[in-house]
Amino acid sequence: MPTTWQELAAEKKVRQAASIPKEWLIAPPSNDVLDVTDIPAKCGLLSARDLEITEVSSVADLLTKIATGTWSSVEVTTAFCKRAVIAHQVTNCLTEIFIDRALERAAWLDEQLKSTGKVVGPLHGLPISLKDQIAIKGLETTMGYVSWIGRVAERDAALTEILIECGAVLYVRTNVPQTLMWPECYNLVFGRTVNPVNRTLTCGGSSGGEGALLGMRGSILGVGSDIGGSIRIPAAMNGVFGLRPSYHRIPYEGSANSLEGQDSLPSVLGPISIDLGGIKLFMQAVIGQMPWLKDPLSMRKHWDGDGYRLVEHGGGQKLTFGILWNDGLVVPHPPIIRALEITRDVLIAAGHDVVDWKPYKHAELYDATMGIWAAAGREDTLAATSQTDEPLLQSMAETNAIEGTAFIGSKGISAFELFKIQKKRAVLRKEYLDHWQSTSVSTSTGRPVDAIISPVAPFPPPPHGQNTNVGYTMIWNVLDYPACVFPVTKVDPVLDRPKPEHDFLSEADRKIHGLYDSPETFKNAPASLQLVGRSQEDEAVIAMTEIVRAALERHGRSKL
Amino acid sequence: MPTTWQELAAEKKVRQAASIPKEWLIAPPSNDVLDVTDIPAKCGLLSARDLEITEVSSVADLLTKIATGTWSSVEVTTAFCKRAVIAHQVTNCLTEIFIDRALERAAWLDEQLKSTGKVVGPLHGLPISLKDQIAIKGLETTMGYVSWIGRVAERDAALTEILIECGAVLYVRTNVPQTLMWPECYNLVFGRTVNPVNRTLTCGGSSGGEGALLGMRGSILGVGSDIGGSIRIPAAMNGVFGLRPSYHRIPYEGSANSLEGQDSLPSVLGPISIDLGGIKLFMQAVIGQMPWLKDPLSMRKHWDGDGYRLVEHGGGQKLTFGILWNDGLVVPHPPIIRALEITRDVLIAAGHDVVDWKPYKHAELYDATMGIWAAAGREDTLAATSQTDEPLLQSMAETNAIEGTAFIGSKGISAFELFKIQKKRAVLRKEYLDHWQSTSVSTSTGRPVDAIISPVAPFPPPPHGQNTNVGYTMIWNVLDYPACVFPVTKVDPVLDRPKPEHDFLSEADRKIHGLYDSPETFKNAPASLQLVGRSQEDEAVIAMTEIVRAALERHGRSKL
Repeated sequence: MPTTWQELAAEKKVRQAASIPKEWLIAPPSNDVLDVTDIPAKCGLLSARDLEITEVSSVADLLTKIATGTWSSVEVTTAFCKRAVIAHQVTNCLTEIFIDRALERAAWLDEQLKSTGKVVGPLHGLPISLKDQIAIKGLETTMGYVSWIGRVAERDAALTEILIECGAVLYVRTNVPQTLMWPECYNLVFGRTVNPVNRTLTCGGSSGGEGALLGMRGSILGVGSDIGGSIRIPAAMNGVFGLRPSYHRIPYEGSANSLEGQDSLPSVLGPISIDLGGIKLFMQAVIGQMPWLKDPLSMRKHWDGDGYRLVEHGGGQKLTFGILWNDGLVVPHPPIIRALEITRDVLIAAGHDVVDWKPYKHAELYDATMGIWAAAGREDTLAATSQTDEPLLQSMAETNAIEGTAFIGSKGISAFELFKIQKKRAVLRKEYLDHWQSTSVSTSTGRPVDAIISPVAPFPPPPHGQNTNVGYTMIWNVLDYPACVFPVTKVDPVLDRPKPEHDFLSEADRKIHGLYDSPETFKNAPASLQLVGRSQEDEAVIAMTEIVRAALERHGRSKL
Repeated sequence: MPTTWQELAAEKKVRQAASIPKEWLIAPPSNDVLDVTDIPAKCGLLSARDLEITEVSSVADLLTKIATGTWSSVEVTTAFCKRAVIAHQVTNCLTEIFIDRALERAAWLDEQLKSTGKVVGPLHGLPISLKDQIAIKGLETTMGYVSWIGRVAERDAALTEILIECGAVLYVRTNVPQTLMWPECYNLVFGRTVNPVNRTLTCGGSSGGEGALLGMRGSILGVGSDIGGSIRIPAAMNGVFGLRPSYHRIPYEGSANSLEGQDSLPSVLGPISIDLGGIKLFMQAVIGQMPWLKDPLSMRKHWDGDGYRLVEHGGGQKLTFGILWNDGLVVPHPPIIRALEITRDVLIAAGHDVVDWKPYKHAELYDATMGIWAAAGREDTLAATSQTDEPLLQSMAETNAIEGTAFIGSKGISAFELFKIQKKRAVLRKEYLDHWQSTSVSTSTGRPVDAIISPVAPFPPPPHGQNTNVGYTMIWNVLDYPACVFPVTKVDPVLDRPKPEHDFLSEADRKIHGLYDSPETFKNAPASLQLVGRSQEDEAVIAMTEIVRAALERHGRSKL
């Protein structure tokens, strides 16, 4: 019987390895192969049909092909299971792997379609990967804690139930960092997940396993969670789409989490997809199942068709976008600035207005966020880890990752201190909203700015341990503004030369500027952005991201 | 210059007295006159027309009469100002009294209507009273704290702005208990507000000033707040309607509050009215102004027409009501049981189904509520009162009210302890929702129970200091279920004989049973109930309360 945390973790890894069919093991590339995105096509495991299926251009296309019988659910599930397992062998992106269950489910769906002539639901046959928080009956949810090994879920999370009702096929769960409170992906159970474009770079986090899996096309739609950027950072760092919905649109009930009971600045679940259409399909399908009947915290709000049709944004004919060039604290790296410039140019060419977005008290909002996160962070982490005395990580670097103190290392505060922070934060939210509404005086439409175009991070995916800034994502969490990540370009060391030192805005700015000394480090890594709307404008955010995406595509300026 | 809290309070009372026109002072009835509801008609200050205006049968009727020029806004405002001042002289229900402002506003509205032929907004000319939390630029918001005397608002609260945009006339603010965390109405600035039906009884609280003012018809629509029953208790105890909306439907931004920054179980603002139609008009008008553009916490959700049309409740044709006879802890007094029986009978007669509602873990939910309220209650209260060292009230009784320790007397807890309570509470909310949904197996419609009919308090308005139980209201706050209070009957000492001792459910049950030894104490006091829906079913709750109300009226069983 294993007793130390190391033994427990090792035993779990053995069980994980046993969940992979032996015939799906590939000859692993050597460690000096950095870009592994071509391994699925080259490794010989996938048939031509498997490749065709897994490289389908859109989620809708895949659903149509299943619904019309072009592809069976079993074929599709098999292809994605194989590719996910390949992805795992080169990026270490998975936690739970449950192929037999998935194939059984797929066979049942095929049978249903055959016998009734109808799809089971709007996501019939769609393989969906889930972050290792979203409980599935009968499977462990370890969430990167050694102490949680063996915690078998007695029932499905609300979202799991809903996805099953929608006809989805669940097949893998994906890796996370310890505590979930890191923008990278490493824990003491499953180890580190890496970026498929360059394995020395982070895949982002905390939904890092999702990011890498999507980047490898081992999934075309997955679910992550986001309390400070955890959906958007890995989406951006793997060149895919990701939506941070507003609080309480997608049901969290029954999913594991850290900092449970912290209700003021909640984490949200949301979709990551290779396809913006997939983001919309997911949101429409889940909301269509009336999640408020299963999750008491889910907002009783149907899919907002008027919101999606941009009724309050002039029908989307002429929009005003505000570009956040920097947040007043950290200047983004050259490829991120270039992505902003590209987006500005195509939007202007498409007939929209583009203005500069002035950041408003971002530093104060960051402080409030950190205050709330840290209010009981250490106690929460210790409660989770004390059973096995697994160490608390102090960095995500490859060296030194398990010494020292926890990321959330501060002493907890009193409820009264917390309320004071939350009160201040409410004032800042009001001021930010007024700041946004006041832009109506300077737009040509008479409306306030319709959406903000913002960096997701000030850098492309950096080397492991270097992802030290989540300011550009957590600002929208603390304000509860929905935000959708879209890929724009890739780092080109020729186009994206390092810039000379500027008048640094902060110590972080200086440090992050220095990180870009050698652009070759980031070569071909994705440079992505996010589109941000006001609270609960989820549908409008999706629609406006479609407009931006179409403008990028029309100008041939965007590639996945 | 006043320096002690007593001097400060006395000086404020002098200023308050000066805000009442001398010619509106009446000869006060002697203290042994308990029922003062007939004073407005008898005191001689109100003209026949003033009486006709203030005794209008519905808010819609009043709005129509102003819009069509039958009554001017100045006439209406004058009548309500006079009647409010009369009400104040016999129940002590007001805090700020600003007649000149109100009349100026009314004159402007009349001018607008005359010059444009159109009303300014959906509440054109409606006098609205506000609880002493809702900030009005240029006026003090003391909220019952001596220490807050002199706090002049620099801007309007979001709701104030919206009501002004809607065309309302603001004219008075109303009294509250110290801290707001009492179901009665007494503080060290303004003193005690009493029940107009019997001045030895409480008017309820914390929106007690509203309750008494509405009971006196010194207002036909006011705004209160509710974190544990503070709208519904005074509405019930004064025989009027009151809605506790779901969290974040009505904008709280810019209003004063206690326990600010406590985000998990928030207080809500909502309407109190002599007329159920007024409740609907208020909600529709405020939501129609898109409060989310002023208040970052307000839900971006338009008035839900389908919800109001009961689309998810079979169009309201045949509803299933669950009756909460008791909460498993306290058996209500005979008049409250009779009100439940009357309501059951008229609903069955109207063709609806009525079943018993089983309470589910109410005690655990009460504990969670108290845990959250008390998490920093003492620190919050001390922060509010320390400036003047005004004492903390330990009871609402007429004796002994300012000695001892505060109601929320416990030591604060850590953020981590708070999160544990909030986590447990989330689990209980899920279980309660499942409990509700599971009723679909036993209804004739196949739907879950459509609404719960519940006591508001286990008693009619008790003598001052005896309102010791808020279980029947706070249960719906912690679950975030919207609830609308409606009057059913009045205490009739002949019909409502005391019942023999039963097998007591709790010590509180024993004590509350004993409180009804002498029914004469409660003679003619209102016996009201509330209709409860699931989270964010505000529109459906209003529509179903209309159905209940119509059934009561059809059977001649209900009088205001």
